[in-house]
Amino acid sequence: MNTRNAFYAQSGGVTAVINASACGVIETARKHADRIGTVFAGRNGIIGALTEDLIDTSQESADAIAGLRTTPSGAFGSCRFKLKSLDANRREYERLIEVFKAHDIAWFFYNGGGDSADTCFKVSQLSASMGYPLQAIHVPKTVDNDLPITDCCPGFGSVAKYVAVSALEASFDVRSMARTSTKVFVLEVMGRHAGWIAAAGGLIEDHGIPVVILFPEIEFDQQRFIARVDALVREHGYCTVVVSEGCHHPDGTFLAEQGTRDAFGHAQLGGAAPVVANMVKEALGYKFHWAVADYLQRAARHIASKTDVQQAYELGQKAVELALDGQNAVMPTVERIADEPYAYRIGIAALADVANVEKFMPRDFITEDGFGITERCKRYLKPLIQGEDHPTYVDGLPVYVTLRNVPVPKKLGPFELK
Amino acid sequence: MNTRNAFYAQSGGVTAVINASACGVIETARKHADRIGTVFAGRNGIIGALTEDLIDTSQESADAIAGLRTTPSGAFGSCRFKLKSLDANRREYERLIEVFKAHDIAWFFYNGGGDSADTCFKVSQLSASMGYPLQAIHVPKTVDNDLPITDCCPGFGSVAKYVAVSALEASFDVRSMARTSTKVFVLEVMGRHAGWIAAAGGLIEDHGIPVVILFPEIEFDQQRFIARVDALVREHGYCTVVVSEGCHHPDGTFLAEQGTRDAFGHAQLGGAAPVVANMVKEALGYKFHWAVADYLQRAARHIASKTDVQQAYELGQKAVELALDGQNAVMPTVERIADEPYAYRIGIAALADVANVEKFMPRDFITEDGFGITERCKRYLKPLIQGEDHPTYVDGLPVYVTLRNVPVPKKLGPFELK
Repeated sequence: MNTRNAFYAQSGGVTAVINASACGVIETARKHADRIGTVFAGRNGIIGALTEDLIDTSQESADAIAGLRTTPSGAFGSCRFKLKSLDANRREYERLIEVFKAHDIAWFFYNGGGDSADTCFKVSQLSASMGYPLQAIHVPKTVDNDLPITDCCPGFGSVAKYVAVSALEASFDVRSMARTSTKVFVLEVMGRHAGWIAAAGGLIEDHGIPVVILFPEIEFDQQRFIARVDALVREHGYCTVVVSEGCHHPDGTFLAEQGTRDAFGHAQLGGAAPVVANMVKEALGYKFHWAVADYLQRAARHIASKTDVQQAYELGQKAVELALDGQNAVMPTVERIADEPYAYRIGIAALADVANVEKFMPRDFITEDGFGITERCKRYLKPLIQGEDHPTYVDGLPVYVTLRNVPVPKKLGPFELK
Repeated sequence: MNTRNAFYAQSGGVTAVINASACGVIETARKHADRIGTVFAGRNGIIGALTEDLIDTSQESADAIAGLRTTPSGAFGSCRFKLKSLDANRREYERLIEVFKAHDIAWFFYNGGGDSADTCFKVSQLSASMGYPLQAIHVPKTVDNDLPITDCCPGFGSVAKYVAVSALEASFDVRSMARTSTKVFVLEVMGRHAGWIAAAGGLIEDHGIPVVILFPEIEFDQQRFIARVDALVREHGYCTVVVSEGCHHPDGTFLAEQGTRDAFGHAQLGGAAPVVANMVKEALGYKFHWAVADYLQRAARHIASKTDVQQAYELGQKAVELALDGQNAVMPTVERIADEPYAYRIGIAALADVANVEKFMPRDFITEDGFGITERCKRYLKPLIQGEDHPTYVDGLPVYVTLRNVPVPKKLGPFELK
């Protein structure tokens, strides 16, 4: 059988484990050298395909590819670049097909969130209509955990573990200081629309920590929030607040937008955490500290969840197997079999059902008062943060690989990104 | 020989390893049960001694005490409470002696930074003059690494490791995103006066990361800073900035104070990181992300430096040995013998030489342009972040102990804190 080539690209915000999926794709492709020639990677995601800026992954040693499993970030570069609709910019889709044709690419593996699932689906449809049938497989990735059908998304478990561990440690710290100093600690976490990441902070309740969670799914009620914080501080002497960056007022304004201005009068230096911390100070006079985890949370490979790393790898592996199996316009998924002991299998979803659907926290995962997570939510979250997968350290720092990323000679003319 | 009791208290901001020192003190005291009766701990630091709110550590199991070695924060509670000078408040010092006398306490172990070294010294002096001689031993602790004589301070190595690991991971993230999105990542770290913690960010340079460090020791020059960031972004496509909370303008104003006002016109929600990030955006237009690590950095026991944990324990152990040896008004220190391979021994310093002296970064640890660290600084820092000392995990979270903290029956009347 003649071999044909594959294309792999990383899309959107990167995670602690998206490279583990890349590792799963490339290692599995290498095992099927009778059918898959070279895996080309897009330099900086789909932009690499549009500009024919391809990376020859066959130039990387087996060790380097294996090292991807323990390396955070996107080893080939990612991008925030959403292809427009077919009507608005058919030219981009046609260019993709042209590049794929020029490099004899038969398989398209796209590793990303909701937007990239949509792109992947459209590429598959268009390629068929253009007479260059391509098998397009989406590999799920998003710290936001907001893709439908799959029980969870690679990247989420590790962020959840980071948030739970960090909130636990900082809470122990505040508890030590509360007698004469800090009584309220506020940690801001990611999640513009869905509160999955903030929810992970609720796991420390079982360690005796009083915690208030502010979800994007629950409209912020300042008076009730202040009352809740005050009650917890009065009972425990301190409390921890985990606030999602997407937490907003009933009118839709984000907490972070609350009129903060710099010396020049420019709006918003950002941060829901300082806003919330100052609210507490104003209303209750409690001394506070706040942290904004930002990229640290999604890049924290050093505290990655073993479950998450394993699933990220398996979904990359499965994507290749599905492709070799003749599947098209699908995404491998995690199907949960049992919470405790945790069991799952890798399933499959049609991209038509995945594209443009966001999965929010079910209301019964959030306590009635809106400030905590329910037992049901804890049963959901716990398996996802289980296990450690410590990287190797040299001289005190983790060993993360940087690939050579050797370019593939171009065969086509330039293409201007619009 | 009759046994007499010991008193141990934690002071000031807690760290990832101050409990390892507590573990060293208590385990060593238990080994000398022929001379040391009970180790009483102050609940919430020295306040516990003043208010006679003592904790009976003999009620804790050997396992619980051993667990302190891997538990961040202050297990007995700490406090921000500086004893006034002897002239201003002799009453407090006399009360301490009264409490020590009532509980037959012959040894005073005080675990803290510069202020507590001073307190420890004064207690030792006063007790002698009051006819109740007490051996006062200071156990060094401070993430700021600013105590004199000792080569380093327990707590610092672990924060340094946290900062280097986090900056490395986030830099990999930014590097992935830089083509179309974030080009500058700003991480704010602790260090109001000394730049030791920020310096640790410089260790990632050897991993190929372009990094700019803003030290409290170097007056901030906005124009030169912007030029430096721009040069790095032009060369590498991205850069990382590590800014110390103590970074300030030539007139002494902290960057974090730069006129930020909330909706009510109140000054400063805080954060040097957003201020710096916005400066970059204003001047260069680069997309940025920023994080403020705050308590996360000093509480991060999960990524503690093994060297740091070991030294914290040994200094606690040595404090007891010095006490039994008849020493008074001293502090055990770390004496470096060699950088590579790293070797050290535990030394001893007189508190008279320690109290009220702050150790800043030597100028030759900072590069000439003021934005980086020199090879000499790297040789100093590298051994301090070496080795990992992973805690045990259950259900995805580290196992940290919470002690029973059983109170000792009071023998004296109440004492009002002023």
